[in-house]
Amino acid sequence: MTFAGRDLVSITDFTNEEIEAVLDLANQMDSALKKGMEIELCKGKDMATLFYEPSTRTRGSFERAMHKLGGTVISFAEAKVMSSAAKGETIADTVRVLRSYADIIVIRHPWDGAAKVAADYADVPVINAGDGSHEHPTQTLCDLYTLKKEKGRLKGLTVLLWGDLKYGRTVHSLIYALARFGAEVLCAPLQGLDVPGPVLRRIHSEYNYMPERVKPDDMTSMIGEVDAFYIAPFKPYNLALWSDFDSSPCPEISIREALRKADAIYVTRVQTERGDRPADTESDGGYPTVDSKFLSQLKKKTLVMHPLPRTNELAYELDDYPTSVYFQQAAYGVPIRMALTALLLGASNIETPERTGVSLSDTAYDNYKQVIGVKCPNANCVSNRESHYLVPKLNMLKRNGGESLILRCVYCDHEMHPPYIASSEWHQGILKNKKYYSSDSFMLDRIRPENLIIFDSAKEAQAHGFMPSKRTVKQRNGGDAT
Amino acid sequence: MTFAGRDLVSITDFTNEEIEAVLDLANQMDSALKKGMEIELCKGKDMATLFYEPSTRTRGSFERAMHKLGGTVISFAEAKVMSSAAKGETIADTVRVLRSYADIIVIRHPWDGAAKVAADYADVPVINAGDGSHEHPTQTLCDLYTLKKEKGRLKGLTVLLWGDLKYGRTVHSLIYALARFGAEVLCAPLQGLDVPGPVLRRIHSEYNYMPERVKPDDMTSMIGEVDAFYIAPFKPYNLALWSDFDSSPCPEISIREALRKADAIYVTRVQTERGDRPADTESDGGYPTVDSKFLSQLKKKTLVMHPLPRTNELAYELDDYPTSVYFQQAAYGVPIRMALTALLLGASNIETPERTGVSLSDTAYDNYKQVIGVKCPNANCVSNRESHYLVPKLNMLKRNGGESLILRCVYCDHEMHPPYIASSEWHQGILKNKKYYSSDSFMLDRIRPENLIIFDSAKEAQAHGFMPSKRTVKQRNGGDAT
Amino acid sequence: MTFAGRDLVSITDFTNEEIEAVLDLANQMDSALKKGMEIELCKGKDMATLFYEPSTRTRGSFERAMHKLGGTVISFAEAKVMSSAAKGETIADTVRVLRSYADIIVIRHPWDGAAKVAADYADVPVINAGDGSHEHPTQTLCDLYTLKKEKGRLKGLTVLLWGDLKYGRTVHSLIYALARFGAEVLCAPLQGLDVPGPVLRRIHSEYNYMPERVKPDDMTSMIGEVDAFYIAPFKPYNLALWSDFDSSPCPEISIREALRKADAIYVTRVQTERGDRPADTESDGGYPTVDSKFLSQLKKKTLVMHPLPRTNELAYELDDYPTSVYFQQAAYGVPIRMALTALLLGASNIETPERTGVSLSDTAYDNYKQVIGVKCPNANCVSNRESHYLVPKLNMLKRNGGESLILRCVYCDHEMHPPYIASSEWHQGILKNKKYYSSDSFMLDRIRPENLIIFDSAKEAQAHGFMPSKRTVKQRNGGDAT
Repeated sequence: MTFAGRDLVSITDFTNEEIEAVLDLANQMDSALKKGMEIELCKGKDMATLFYEPSTRTRGSFERAMHKLGGTVISFAEAKVMSSAAKGETIADTVRVLRSYADIIVIRHPWDGAAKVAADYADVPVINAGDGSHEHPTQTLCDLYTLKKEKGRLKGLTVLLWGDLKYGRTVHSLIYALARFGAEVLCAPLQGLDVPGPVLRRIHSEYNYMPERVKPDDMTSMIGEVDAFYIAPFKPYNLALWSDFDSSPCPEISIREALRKADAIYVTRVQTERGDRPADTESDGGYPTVDSKFLSQLKKKTLVMHPLPRTNELAYELDDYPTSVYFQQAAYGVPIRMALTALLLGASNIETPERTGVSLSDTAYDNYKQVIGVKCPNANCVSNRESHYLVPKLNMLKRNGGESLILRCVYCDHEMHPPYIASSEWHQGILKNKKYYSSDSFMLDRIRPENLIIFDSAKEAQAHGFMPSKRTVKQRNGGDAT
Repeated sequence: MTFAGRDLVSITDFTNEEIEAVLDLANQMDSALKKGMEIELCKGKDMATLFYEPSTRTRGSFERAMHKLGGTVISFAEAKVMSSAAKGETIADTVRVLRSYADIIVIRHPWDGAAKVAADYADVPVINAGDGSHEHPTQTLCDLYTLKKEKGRLKGLTVLLWGDLKYGRTVHSLIYALARFGAEVLCAPLQGLDVPGPVLRRIHSEYNYMPERVKPDDMTSMIGEVDAFYIAPFKPYNLALWSDFDSSPCPEISIREALRKADAIYVTRVQTERGDRPADTESDGGYPTVDSKFLSQLKKKTLVMHPLPRTNELAYELDDYPTSVYFQQAAYGVPIRMALTALLLGASNIETPERTGVSLSDTAYDNYKQVIGVKCPNANCVSNRESHYLVPKLNMLKRNGGESLILRCVYCDHEMHPPYIASSEWHQGILKNKKYYSSDSFMLDRIRPENLIIFDSAKEAQAHGFMPSKRTVKQRNGGDAT
Repeated sequence: MTFAGRDLVSITDFTNEEIEAVLDLANQMDSALKKGMEIELCKGKDMATLFYEPSTRTRGSFERAMHKLGGTVISFAEAKVMSSAAKGETIADTVRVLRSYADIIVIRHPWDGAAKVAADYADVPVINAGDGSHEHPTQTLCDLYTLKKEKGRLKGLTVLLWGDLKYGRTVHSLIYALARFGAEVLCAPLQGLDVPGPVLRRIHSEYNYMPERVKPDDMTSMIGEVDAFYIAPFKPYNLALWSDFDSSPCPEISIREALRKADAIYVTRVQTERGDRPADTESDGGYPTVDSKFLSQLKKKTLVMHPLPRTNELAYELDDYPTSVYFQQAAYGVPIRMALTALLLGASNIETPERTGVSLSDTAYDNYKQVIGVKCPNANCVSNRESHYLVPKLNMLKRNGGESLILRCVYCDHEMHPPYIASSEWHQGILKNKKYYSSDSFMLDRIRPENLIIFDSAKEAQAHGFMPSKRTVKQRNGGDAT
């Protein structure tokens, strides 16, 4: 399958073979750069960098990459104030204009799912440079490239993820990729900043893999006396922006074991700009610092990685350690983004095998797309932020599996377990069946997909003219429900 | 006449032949782009984009155009905070510095007339990319190009202007151009957002043309129940920023007839950032939406145009209609701005006939330029905003026509009808004539132009040592005045 | 000595021969530009412009220069909001990332000494485009080039510095350079805005030169009635941000004599954004204006210079005078910055003699660098602003000269005269000598440099376990001290 004309919104858009093709080409680009070769693959092409959030690394390395490919850049560095967004223009309109001015669009946006909307509306390649707390796939490509460069492989590596595993979009993209490549993932989340349930479930259901999680008590004792300090500010995080009703069933591992096994520790800062915390809260109060004392507990060759920028969670004293590769990670951004840009623009051609079901996106789901009924539960999802032209679009998980109905937003991957369903079949202007049912009932299998309406509450169902079903309906899993 | 070295501040700076030359060259550029030809006409040249207001389309397409011409761009995308304007530097100083760094300057500024000041002080070509509520001539070039591409001609077309015809700078530039090319202009202004009187008068006096205006009652009934809602927020607009004492004498047309006749409807958003409305007022409350229902009242082939960005006045459901050309309008920005840039930089040469009086600018007026006396009545005019180095400069209309004295600001085109005049002739340190007269009196013809002083009020005249004339002075139009 | 790979943080980084080499190459660049020659010395190279403060001139001319050299630019025009600095990233981290994306970094920052930190951490050339109130060496290169172009020489010229000589970073860089090239410097500071003591002392001690200063009474009478007005707002400036305990021993000169002698007057605006003045104070109230009346007191050929932007201190009526060269100064920014960039990137090679002691930087000082003890007294110094990874680093002046101990911050050049010293020599876990002494005592010569600790107060010394020495210790200059 060719890359030309495609988008990169989620790391799951690429198969493993495709990811490896990007890494290989990046390696060639890197060698060519080092030899001082002129690489003019994209001469005459324009890249638009549309950044609604601050950036040094990502925008800088994309612009460098485009220059090194012989192309030019049109920069919207602070798009929130600089562009027509200041006049209320939607993402869809902005990219439909920009597609005439640029051959490829790189977008960063504070809303989850914004990059997907851009990709849907622009008919030039769109690269997600970070969308809210959702994903940041090109960072993941840099991370994978760094691991492969330093360790020679991905399969079988053990990577310990450390810090804010909830709001860090780089973590979400990385965890999917590591699982797929057969790396072992250990999670050491700060209290209240666990990997979101939907991310775990997705890995579990689609790769049959489950990361191990450091015992909370171990984390607490490690962080020691500062703990009490840091718990407080993160309390509000528990009011789950993500729907994690599916509480994480990760096997536990001791901190000692985790540190002993890790080939790399991936440190992250607390994403203070995300979630519902007031922006002016002092954030790094009790954040435990990874420093030289901490490092002494790791294997000698354990890599220290960080997507940067850091605040206080990673000590400056580690900067000159040979295993500290975070500035290298940033530097690899140039060959990686050169390779990706050249591929999507069709300036480099690599044929990879057709998709084989290895990619998450391959798992086909029924779509639920209705103007009435449930909406994505994530207030920061682009489908809620720009609801005047976007219709909610949700994947139906477990539809035929005899389990609960779970909906996953195609924009932001947030999930929900809506309580009621009904049929919208009309006959001569009259609803054929005015009842609504539990979403756990067997009626889920009876209603034809194109007629299915799903409700978030009884009130909403009633507002649309449905009444509760009076008879008891068999549950799909055998029990009874109203 | 050659284009090299000239400015484009107002669409009236170009004759019809010149506009057609730009459109023709744009057409060639467009073909060359489509063939993938390298057009390196401006290699080694720099364009400075100096934007004191947000922009996606205009800046993006100018930068794309310059790249496609082989040139480079120095971007001041949010000049208000990024440049020395933050330290209080004037427009004149900024452009006198930038002229050494760039071969051509593109400026957008919130003050009416700012582009003219830039053009006056920079000795490189200056292009107006929008100055306050005044003009936006390159948008007009895109609009004309779109009309010509889609309809094959301009002469004889009927264009219905819809929405905010008062503050929309794109509308003002367009209406001049359409009138000149012999198109028929129909106006459907929202209540309180009529075409400013001076614009109408200018078209009337210089082209002997008057647009037709949809009957207010028709507009009201069309907008229906939302009307009451939308009238309220716009009330303040009636406190005319523009001096429209010359109330519009447009012939009226029914909405039904207007919709039936229109070859194109040009929809505009309410310019909520202009005028004296508080910025945080909810703006689009009652704005009527042009949607598919609305469209059904138009001819099948009526084009739907919009300068973008839109808010709620144009429904997303129209985006895929074959007659919706607004994204095409935006796309044409590239070839149009390529052609214009190449011409002004002298990289392309097209000889057009010398001016023949067809252009508005050809009509010669006496200038009034005095440190004392009247100033431009528009508080947002650059001559008032940067009065510490700019002297008011006003065209005297009707000077010899036996009618009222009307002054028109050369920066922002606002007009006034000042009540008093006097002579500043001095003899041996003493004013020869200490009287001031009605500006409608025949004294207007008696006082030599170089001595004429014009006052906005009796108080001002008296402050400068003049006393009211006691005898009755014959009016120019035959009546009496004091 | 070659330029390739070096930084330009302070004008004193270059010897006179090196400065002349830059000016000569700029002259060649200027000629080549005028002939329309293509100069592709830096093809394939990227310049990052990292501006944490607004700029038109400096960023614009650097970007133009890079384009004219055939290179490309990655622009962080409003780095404070656009880059990761918005997420709390330090200067050191930002430049260690950017060095992978750019071949040369141009930085402007509001903190004194920020450019030095950037130069210390990036391993690509760093150019200081203005750091707080500290230096702006490329402006000085433009100023010197202008003087040489217009007057044919630097040696023996008399330059009158006018205005804010305290916070104007361009003035500090210029005054060093003029003194070194043997020009005569006259200072006409506004009240409270004198040249900082350390700058004067440095010139005096290292070049044995002392500028003359216009008598304060003369300045007052010249400024006349506005004086009372302007004194008030500047009062707070006397609360010396700079440590000017070494009150300026400049010889005085009458204003009449100063104006008669000046070959150039260098006018500056009040740097209202610096110092401790509230940002919203109306600033230019009583600032005396250099206008045509003022000019009549100067020699006919006295150049009028200004680094721009101006506010009200320089009248627009002078703009067309043949001796007004301020726009020319700005225009020279292009060839100067081309020459500098080409040299530091190693694209042009000029060999200059090895340093011979002519440069200020040649004077070797002992360094004081301790985690405990004194810190730089300047709150705006980068060593205080980013103290979590920067250790104070101070030059010890007069160490062996038998005079007072003076420390000068290597980042921002601020000075201090700390009162106490002690020895940190330990023996088997016990301090060998638990006493602290006056810094003026002969103990300063006794304590070995590597053991020396310097304290800002007795309290601080005691907090670290030291007690006052009870016996009287001989002062270095012969007297007694405790």
